[in-house]
Amino acid sequence: MATAVLTHFGASDRAQLATEAGRLIERLRRHGACPDGGVTRLVYSPEWRAAMADVEEWLSESGLTVRVDAVGSRFGRLAGERDSVVLTGSHIDSVRNGGAFDGVLGIVMAGCAAQWLASSLGRPRRTLEVFANCEEESSRFACNFWGSRAIAGRIEAGETERLVDEEGRTIGDAMRACDLDPRAVSMARRNDLAAYVEPHIEQGPVLLESGDEIGVVDRVVGIRVLSVTVRGVAGHAGTIPMAKRHDALAGVGEIMFAVERLAQQTGAPIVATVGTLIVRPGGFNQVPGEADFTVDFRHPEDQSLDGFDHQLRQLIRDVSGRRGLSVQFGQIVNQAGIRFDGDICRALETSCEEARVRWRRMPSHAGHDAQLIGTLCPAAMFFVPSQGGHSHRPDERTELEHIGGGIEVLVRTLFRLAYQNG
Amino acid sequence: MATAVLTHFGASDRAQLATEAGRLIERLRRHGACPDGGVTRLVYSPEWRAAMADVEEWLSESGLTVRVDAVGSRFGRLAGERDSVVLTGSHIDSVRNGGAFDGVLGIVMAGCAAQWLASSLGRPRRTLEVFANCEEESSRFACNFWGSRAIAGRIEAGETERLVDEEGRTIGDAMRACDLDPRAVSMARRNDLAAYVEPHIEQGPVLLESGDEIGVVDRVVGIRVLSVTVRGVAGHAGTIPMAKRHDALAGVGEIMFAVERLAQQTGAPIVATVGTLIVRPGGFNQVPGEADFTVDFRHPEDQSLDGFDHQLRQLIRDVSGRRGLSVQFGQIVNQAGIRFDGDICRALETSCEEARVRWRRMPSHAGHDAQLIGTLCPAAMFFVPSQGGHSHRPDERTELEHIGGGIEVLVRTLFRLAYQNG
Repeated sequence: MATAVLTHFGASDRAQLATEAGRLIERLRRHGACPDGGVTRLVYSPEWRAAMADVEEWLSESGLTVRVDAVGSRFGRLAGERDSVVLTGSHIDSVRNGGAFDGVLGIVMAGCAAQWLASSLGRPRRTLEVFANCEEESSRFACNFWGSRAIAGRIEAGETERLVDEEGRTIGDAMRACDLDPRAVSMARRNDLAAYVEPHIEQGPVLLESGDEIGVVDRVVGIRVLSVTVRGVAGHAGTIPMAKRHDALAGVGEIMFAVERLAQQTGAPIVATVGTLIVRPGGFNQVPGEADFTVDFRHPEDQSLDGFDHQLRQLIRDVSGRRGLSVQFGQIVNQAGIRFDGDICRALETSCEEARVRWRRMPSHAGHDAQLIGTLCPAAMFFVPSQGGHSHRPDERTELEHIGGGIEVLVRTLFRLAYQNG
Repeated sequence: MATAVLTHFGASDRAQLATEAGRLIERLRRHGACPDGGVTRLVYSPEWRAAMADVEEWLSESGLTVRVDAVGSRFGRLAGERDSVVLTGSHIDSVRNGGAFDGVLGIVMAGCAAQWLASSLGRPRRTLEVFANCEEESSRFACNFWGSRAIAGRIEAGETERLVDEEGRTIGDAMRACDLDPRAVSMARRNDLAAYVEPHIEQGPVLLESGDEIGVVDRVVGIRVLSVTVRGVAGHAGTIPMAKRHDALAGVGEIMFAVERLAQQTGAPIVATVGTLIVRPGGFNQVPGEADFTVDFRHPEDQSLDGFDHQLRQLIRDVSGRRGLSVQFGQIVNQAGIRFDGDICRALETSCEEARVRWRRMPSHAGHDAQLIGTLCPAAMFFVPSQGGHSHRPDERTELEHIGGGIEVLVRTLFRLAYQNG
């Protein structure tokens, strides 16, 4: 039976599903549309509610049974012979003024694949579920993979009342406004998952440049973020000669220049970013006495992260010491690299070969839901190309041709996981 | 008569006046005292009103006739044979959490000198006035030498309703709360000034390091402040390889490092300061797409300022161009250097010689009231040393010994200007 399926998914299926997916992307981008083509769809906002209602309607029309969990994520279920679930999808929320593809494309591809499987092959062995995760971006609350943490049972007691948005509203309050009971968060935990596959738009230019159509993501790089405070001596911008200064910001200037050079010299795949910088006192006519900044650095190998961490701190200490500045380190993020499931990666690759799409293995340099759900069951991800290599921007986009290839790969992979196995 | 006076100002006068000045500084520092010893005395605040009332009481007790002008500055008058006025003093307001000496020391020294002259020599030829200027620091409103601008007739129509403080209150409202009529501001203009001498605590370490007790200030350096916006491409801190970035903040890091080096290589007396820096979007996991910063640079010679300005813009353009960043310049301050009156400077120097205090000529690297009042009459300043070279800090301080020397120099200079001349 398996072989039969693979032969009757043809070029016309791929084209038709790509068109359908493109239409769904346009349908969903209306919810939170910005004037410049961007999307702002923050968790539990009116735009988010409208988008979730739309997803629910579409999944139901596709013949799936839709369920809402305790944090508002949606699951479109195609019941199989067994209760163990092959889950596939991504998140519905966006960053502020982000694009229409990040997250949503994964849900749309999952839904299109499930719909094709349901109508073409009927009931699977394992149950198949399309996942529309409520929240991944931390763009309203610093909630750090809210939907997948709920599934993984990793939301801590009190978080619903502790996490607040810019307006001081708690995430618990925002849930209640969506008819969700924050006390029931632990009910979202699942123990019935057999596998998770997350399709996602690539957030960089790797596929675009290599010409590959699929990136089989076998790991998420380790991420560390240092916070650094440099203290010197504030003073009058006119009356303190250059040679007498202990200018905290001038020190940070030299540090930033050196950090960038260190990352360039260490070479890919390391990346290092100073994204935040605050200066005190901050008047144009005041020599800065203090500056806070962050350094975000990422690499697939923990050992390389350790090495870079060491060099980075040494460099910051050296520059500060030479300038008579004191320095204080903190750590905002310390997330070890994660490896995805080898069997699912191989299933994805075999499916790529069958679908005749060019693929490569690659790491993800950003965090994703799959790393949380991967604590419950075998999981992996795959990327489709981003035109221009853009991410979190209004002009973020994947070509229909690549969406079609991705859906075929997903159909073939889900067939393996839900129809052939289990 | 002149020679007689100078001989009978002796060491005991100097010591007594220094003690009196020290006591007055402590008396006035209570108005706006901060827990750490600093002073916050913003114009037209309750602390400012209390300080002005205290100054008024002290000047009256010193035998001077006190008058309030239309913007709230106080003048303690010792009427002379003529109406033309030799003015001396400084400002009562402070920066936020500044020191007790900046401004106030000039008023106190002026008051002590005038009191000694009044009691020892009686009526001068020219009228002598002690000036307690209402505002110089722009620490509540961006009002840029409010008190001396009022005297010079340089407050523009509408400013009283346009300038607002952090709480959105206009300076006109703040004046009304102090029983001042903002419509009467133009009444503060004076046309009776013959000379102005402003004593001030030095705002840097020059006197401290040279061992001189008096700095005869013959000019205020030219000040320019550029605002610069650098734009690159924002993006994800994980997914954009180092080689593909157009990171606005990394560019500013290199620029800051190069600006500092340029100022060091150009050599004293140039100073250049990046005091303000704002990064967008500003998340730790975002490659910065945009950064705004300021460069404040100062030099006594306009030609040198022009040269530095040119090199600075070229440097910023070069770094930005090489990195694929766009750059936009604005100008916040463009203030030409100002020369003070040569005769008053020489009178100060002769007085230093008579008083046997070591002196040097020097520029002021900060703006002062004297540059505004100098548009009406011959004017100059002198500095007394700041312990530690500090300014605008709670621990700002001048030794009593140096205050005494400064008062003697002022007594002798005012004697020249008001008793011998005119």
